[in-house]
Amino acid sequence: MSVSATDQKQEQIIEAALKRFAHFGVAKTTMSEIADDLSLSKASLYYYFPDKTALVLAVGENILSVFLDEQSKALANAQSFEEGINAIIEVRICFGRKYFMMHIGDGQSDVNTADPKFKTALDHLKQTELDMMAAYIRQYQKEKVLKDVDAKETAEVLLDVLVGLWIAEIHIHQKSFVPTNELFERIRTKTKRMVSIFCDGIKRN
Amino acid sequence: MSVSATDQKQEQIIEAALKRFAHFGVAKTTMSEIADDLSLSKASLYYYFPDKTALVLAVGENILSVFLDEQSKALANAQSFEEGINAIIEVRICFGRKYFMMHIGDGQSDVNTADPKFKTALDHLKQTELDMMAAYIRQYQKEKVLKDVDAKETAEVLLDVLVGLWIAEIHIHQKSFVPTNELFERIRTKTKRMVSIFCDGIKRN
Repeated sequence: MSVSATDQKQEQIIEAALKRFAHFGVAKTTMSEIADDLSLSKASLYYYFPDKTALVLAVGENILSVFLDEQSKALANAQSFEEGINAIIEVRICFGRKYFMMHIGDGQSDVNTADPKFKTALDHLKQTELDMMAAYIRQYQKEKVLKDVDAKETAEVLLDVLVGLWIAEIHIHQKSFVPTNELFERIRTKTKRMVSIFCDGIKRN
Repeated sequence: MSVSATDQKQEQIIEAALKRFAHFGVAKTTMSEIADDLSLSKASLYYYFPDKTALVLAVGENILSVFLDEQSKALANAQSFEEGINAIIEVRICFGRKYFMMHIGDGQSDVNTADPKFKTALDHLKQTELDMMAAYIRQYQKEKVLKDVDAKETAEVLLDVLVGLWIAEIHIHQKSFVPTNELFERIRTKTKRMVSIFCDGIKRN
């Protein structure tokens, strides 16, 4: 099979796995189910992905890469500092909601996503988000919209707060295993309130 | 036995249990160990606390009550708005560190602290903290230090962020079961940075 055909097949598998993982979670999805979804033999599936962990990793990296891309676009299209941050919040809620059952990065991950390679991919995501946010802050510092705070430290705190409010809401207030609309509304409301105060705190008067 | 003797014995038991729970966690502490610590028969121990859950609840309520008291004192003694918030952070880190193994309110609780009565006690704590913080914000609004933001909503966001940064750090960055000095230093640094921006965001110019 040609390289592009292999690539295409891999993409189809990732897409099928992503659907199952997103709905049932990683632990409750078997390789057989994914093979069946694609009318593929298990042997063929294992030709492309030697084990479930490899597939989980590929799916995870796929999600993280789109997640970064969407956040980057959100910032690039913003007409004001707050608009960019609020757009980021929407991207994060949208992804968090869509892939909730995979629990990527919320500390409740399935055994399969606890693989060190997955941690490396997450660390890479965090570093890229941090660089992106610091650059965004610097841009508005140049335009004299923001105070001369340390851009990297400020970006770090802002991202930590976004993650923190998300996790606090899920771990403490939400105890059912499937998330509700109310949960995401609460996260949105609290995060927007927080970000509004945060922006006021770093903007020039 | 007189009522005060009963009370005294209960307090001794709570104190002994608190020591074990704080060091080993709730799950790894047996009622026998607590009885032995006090040279008490198991029958006597069960006279005062009919089961482990009742004892865990009493210990938890004890901790929460002192926790509230310390926070309240910290705010009352503050010479400026920021000083109060920073003092609150220190109280929270001190308690979080001291009772880390009990995982009160960080979403990682032992089975025994998942009792509904414990949840009620935690909810009560949260409500009292919220009222206390809202009153603190209103006080500095009267003195024209803070903007006319909604005091209750602002208090809620601030408390959520304090919890959120704590949990994010523990669930995501910290994976060993015993906390390190570095962990608490990171929480302190990030929280103080965040609170500094937060205060700038709600202060009048």
